[in-house]
Amino acid sequence: MSSIKFVPDEKHAVCKIGDNLLDAARRIGIEIIGPCGGKALCGKCIVKIVAGEGALNSPTDEEKLALSRKRISEGYRLSCRCEVIRYEDIVVYIPPETRASEYVLLVEGQLVRERHDPLLRDVKAVFSRRARKSIVENILTTYRNMNIVFSLQALRNISSLVQDFEKEATLVLHKKEVLDVKDDDNILGFAIDIGTTKLAGYLVDIPKGKILVTTSEINPQIVYGEDVVSRITYAINNGVGTLHRKIVDCINKMMEKACKSINLQVEDIYEIVAVGNSVMHHTLLGLDLKALAYFPYTPVIKEPIYLKASDLGFYANREAKLFLPPLVAGYIGSDVVADILAVEMHKVNSPSMLIDIGTNTEIVIGKDCRFFACSTASGPAFEGAHIKFGMRAAKGAIERVDISDYGDVRYTVIGGARPIGLTGSAVVDAIAGLHSSGILDYSGKLIKREDIKRLRVGEDGLLEFVIAYKDETAIGKDIVLTQKDVREVQLAKAAIKCGVSILMKKLGINEEDLDVIYVAGAFGFFLNPISAIRIGLLPKIDVGKIRIVGNTAGMGARAILLSEDMRKEAVELVERIEHVELAAEPDFQKEFMASMNIPKD
Amino acid sequence: MSSIKFVPDEKHAVCKIGDNLLDAARRIGIEIIGPCGGKALCGKCIVKIVAGEGALNSPTDEEKLALSRKRISEGYRLSCRCEVIRYEDIVVYIPPETRASEYVLLVEGQLVRERHDPLLRDVKAVFSRRARKSIVENILTTYRNMNIVFSLQALRNISSLVQDFEKEATLVLHKKEVLDVKDDDNILGFAIDIGTTKLAGYLVDIPKGKILVTTSEINPQIVYGEDVVSRITYAINNGVGTLHRKIVDCINKMMEKACKSINLQVEDIYEIVAVGNSVMHHTLLGLDLKALAYFPYTPVIKEPIYLKASDLGFYANREAKLFLPPLVAGYIGSDVVADILAVEMHKVNSPSMLIDIGTNTEIVIGKDCRFFACSTASGPAFEGAHIKFGMRAAKGAIERVDISDYGDVRYTVIGGARPIGLTGSAVVDAIAGLHSSGILDYSGKLIKREDIKRLRVGEDGLLEFVIAYKDETAIGKDIVLTQKDVREVQLAKAAIKCGVSILMKKLGINEEDLDVIYVAGAFGFFLNPISAIRIGLLPKIDVGKIRIVGNTAGMGARAILLSEDMRKEAVELVERIEHVELAAEPDFQKEFMASMNIPKD
Ligand code: FES
Ligand code: FES
Repeated sequence: MSSIKFVPDEKHAVCKIGDNLLDAARRIGIEIIGPCGGKALCGKCIVKIVAGEGALNSPTDEEKLALSRKRISEGYRLSCRCEVIRYEDIVVYIPPETRASEYVLLVEGQLVRERHDPLLRDVKAVFSRRARKSIVENILTTYRNMNIVFSLQALRNISSLVQDFEKEATLVLHKKEVLDVKDDDNILGFAIDIGTTKLAGYLVDIPKGKILVTTSEINPQIVYGEDVVSRITYAINNGVGTLHRKIVDCINKMMEKACKSINLQVEDIYEIVAVGNSVMHHTLLGLDLKALAYFPYTPVIKEPIYLKASDLGFYANREAKLFLPPLVAGYIGSDVVADILAVEMHKVNSPSMLIDIGTNTEIVIGKDCRFFACSTASGPAFEGAHIKFGMRAAKGAIERVDISDYGDVRYTVIGGARPIGLTGSAVVDAIAGLHSSGILDYSGKLIKREDIKRLRVGEDGLLEFVIAYKDETAIGKDIVLTQKDVREVQLAKAAIKCGVSILMKKLGINEEDLDVIYVAGAFGFFLNPISAIRIGLLPKIDVGKIRIVGNTAGMGARAILLSEDMRKEAVELVERIEHVELAAEPDFQKEFMASMNIPKD
Repeated sequence: MSSIKFVPDEKHAVCKIGDNLLDAARRIGIEIIGPCGGKALCGKCIVKIVAGEGALNSPTDEEKLALSRKRISEGYRLSCRCEVIRYEDIVVYIPPETRASEYVLLVEGQLVRERHDPLLRDVKAVFSRRARKSIVENILTTYRNMNIVFSLQALRNISSLVQDFEKEATLVLHKKEVLDVKDDDNILGFAIDIGTTKLAGYLVDIPKGKILVTTSEINPQIVYGEDVVSRITYAINNGVGTLHRKIVDCINKMMEKACKSINLQVEDIYEIVAVGNSVMHHTLLGLDLKALAYFPYTPVIKEPIYLKASDLGFYANREAKLFLPPLVAGYIGSDVVADILAVEMHKVNSPSMLIDIGTNTEIVIGKDCRFFACSTASGPAFEGAHIKFGMRAAKGAIERVDISDYGDVRYTVIGGARPIGLTGSAVVDAIAGLHSSGILDYSGKLIKREDIKRLRVGEDGLLEFVIAYKDETAIGKDIVLTQKDVREVQLAKAAIKCGVSILMKKLGINEEDLDVIYVAGAFGFFLNPISAIRIGLLPKIDVGKIRIVGNTAGMGARAILLSEDMRKEAVELVERIEHVELAAEPDFQKEFMASMNIPKD
């Protein structure tokens, strides 16, 4: 028996002839990354032999391809190819980047352990002008059974490499295609969540699995309509071309800026992964939106798509790929798929729910790997539209409101300035507070009470409640919540609650069965979950079970960029999600009406 | 038992329940095409049921996809999907286009039976905006196990199709990729043989397997050098860019002209297949030629390549593919592979030889599926260069010379005009004739004889022989063959004979073992094989065994365009060809010297 000491862990493994170092390390709990599964393909399971190299086989051809000569001469090996051939003591050093546990990313407050088995791989290879059959033959020989193909760019670069007789270079491999052959190791990817309102982009170092830059932009399509329905209408009347170009230009700008900020080139970007709702997906591709406009809102394609990014006008590497994860249905896009993957809801069996509140609110409820999803037209009330003093979350917006039993008000303002309006979350807070203090009844009616000074009759003859008096605000008038505002919110939350109820019925569960609710998206990020439960916007569960998860669509997109497995999981997941067309449900009308009221505490 | 009558053949087949019509027809010797092998994928095995449809299964979903509704209602079926389900008499009509034997092409005097299993296929499909999951789902369902993918163009066209609720269209499928979706059935391919001097192109109707237009152009690279070596030199000094663009532009021009001549569009071209020597191959791709310039003349890549044609600047359909068949070695290109495939030399076991004479002469000798190939620098003598009155085969060139035992001369002139020079084939004739009549000895020396008036001392003090006197010619002077001319031809033919000898030795055969010699290429087309044998340019075999086959490279390119099997055969063939580097052979010097003399009759 040989003894292998792993440093710096100072752990010992006992080995037999024929054992390899990767297995030996894993056996004693040292996690080494090796996304290729020990097949010498990923080149990640690198270790350094500190002592006892004589007890090991000499470096294989595969290792010579994966590691530079210099590194091999320094004692670096692929642990999956390093076999014990003689009994002798061995000391092996595990570099930090070889440890699986290093691949942990801190994302918007959440610690997510991302997988790292990207489709893009960097492989070192030596090209020689003296090759026997063709210069690319060493690569083809190594990957004999993989049917490796070369892009034009790769072939051209290889042809210039052989100015010298022999030259080492880095291959950029995407699945089975050599996209590029280059001198440096810069292999970037760009993950993007295309929201109807905002785009969030992430520039990622693919081999290292590290986010380099996070960036966001307002969706430039917004001038053609605030929500997806108005974008569809615009496209039907004017063609999809403008919307398509706007979004591509915007992403180009984001990539350009992100690369520039860290002195890299957009030519170093080899894959773009984009998620979004079906309308964003189709406009990105420049597809006619007609089919999405009418029942049954059928996407042209919902299957995952690989395209050449340059075909769509992206300025990245000329051979870069664009990957679009699958859609679920016309109104459930790949952003929802990314949401689910990011929170790993597809891996738990207990009942769970994910909700992304917006003009269209997407809801997914699942249990035992079975999912129901719907989209509901909750309208723009939560985003501030149709609310008298409503506004988006921006400087000067009141974002939290607290109303005491006596009708006193405390609020907080974004940026700490004098207030100019109310965010959707403030409105939810206000309605919850008014109801608790008895100023608003279960049906959503403001109740006239003499002792509440702030309650008064507004211009329209209906009651309204003053949140901030004129002299506190920056707009020279009172900021109020009107009876009409309350009705708007009631309609919005009824649409959502109705969707939740119908999905829960399909799955045969009740509110209290839910183990966790993930609140995704920008609006949810500011939402006070207690208020949301109080007004019936969220199911009545222990508030500790509610997780405000932020931009999970962006997290999911990044995870997909970094993992082939994730892409497979996305496809499997989509097959397990049943899309429910709420309007076509017989119970719809009844459930909707029943969802209007504000629940009892 | 059912009886099936096939018309118009009036042949009968007896059938059991479960038999399909394709098999039944083939059993009694009716050849039905079905390149997909009866898998309902190619949609080619179409028959029409004239009577007894009740005895057959009803049309399957696959047939509904492959055939239009109208055709189904008229009784058309895919014979591979048409099963006998009841005993009853059936009458089946076989349309001419369904017969394998119709796929015969008359090519340059040769009747070649081409195979027809193209990678490009046309499939009818119906798209409905009411589709359940996505609009493309019916295609994906049909090809479930094939992993069909869609090009951007195909997706965009599908998305506009659904302006109507339901619409039939033609899919253009290339392997597993839907390249296009269109209203018409125009699916063209372009096969091209890129010669160092001339390009020959063929516009082909892929579904019909028919050549529509044949076209040729002078290789525009010719201004940068007449032969491959000077092109390489040019590229090394000036970059490959110019050569690359020249060739692409030229092919674009050819495609444009060919399409225009029959009122079709270059956008209807979905695949281009190009063959050529390694230098043409590499310049087409825009690869640096350095590796081809020096021993061991290694190509960057010799494996078959698929690229998007537009990436190289081709104006064809934007999703069109470019296919380059494999090379054998630096000096044995895909034109030689195409030659062999065209004459089907790879399918015979008896010793055979193929030779393409030019500045570089390629020779392949094979037996029992084993091949040796070499390229030999025979120089431009046969193309008229370095010969005092030499010229290319063009109007006014003497192409045949007959010299009697008394030194009388008869000749024929291309275009029937007064002569202005000698083609290579005329020079070969003249040398053969001079030798036969004893005016030229075995060593290639002209022998002074008083009785031969035409033999005289030239300006250089050496003997020369007058082929045409001044008053017969259009150039105002005598056209002669000089002693130096004879030496040039001797060197050229020695290079070739030496190559042949070395290859035959490798294979262990002698001249007289050869069963057939294919003389390919433009020069060979004009060659008089009897003269060629006499001067020792071709092995001494029964002249009936020599086949002048013309542009087999072009024929092979077309066959590859029309057949997936041919592409596989090309790859297998290349593996069985051993390339012999003549200069590296120990016998080279000796063999070369021994090949200089003119053989005894
Ligand atoms: S585990 Fe992938 S190279 Fe070793
Ligand atoms: S044989 Fe191909 S469809 Fe019938």
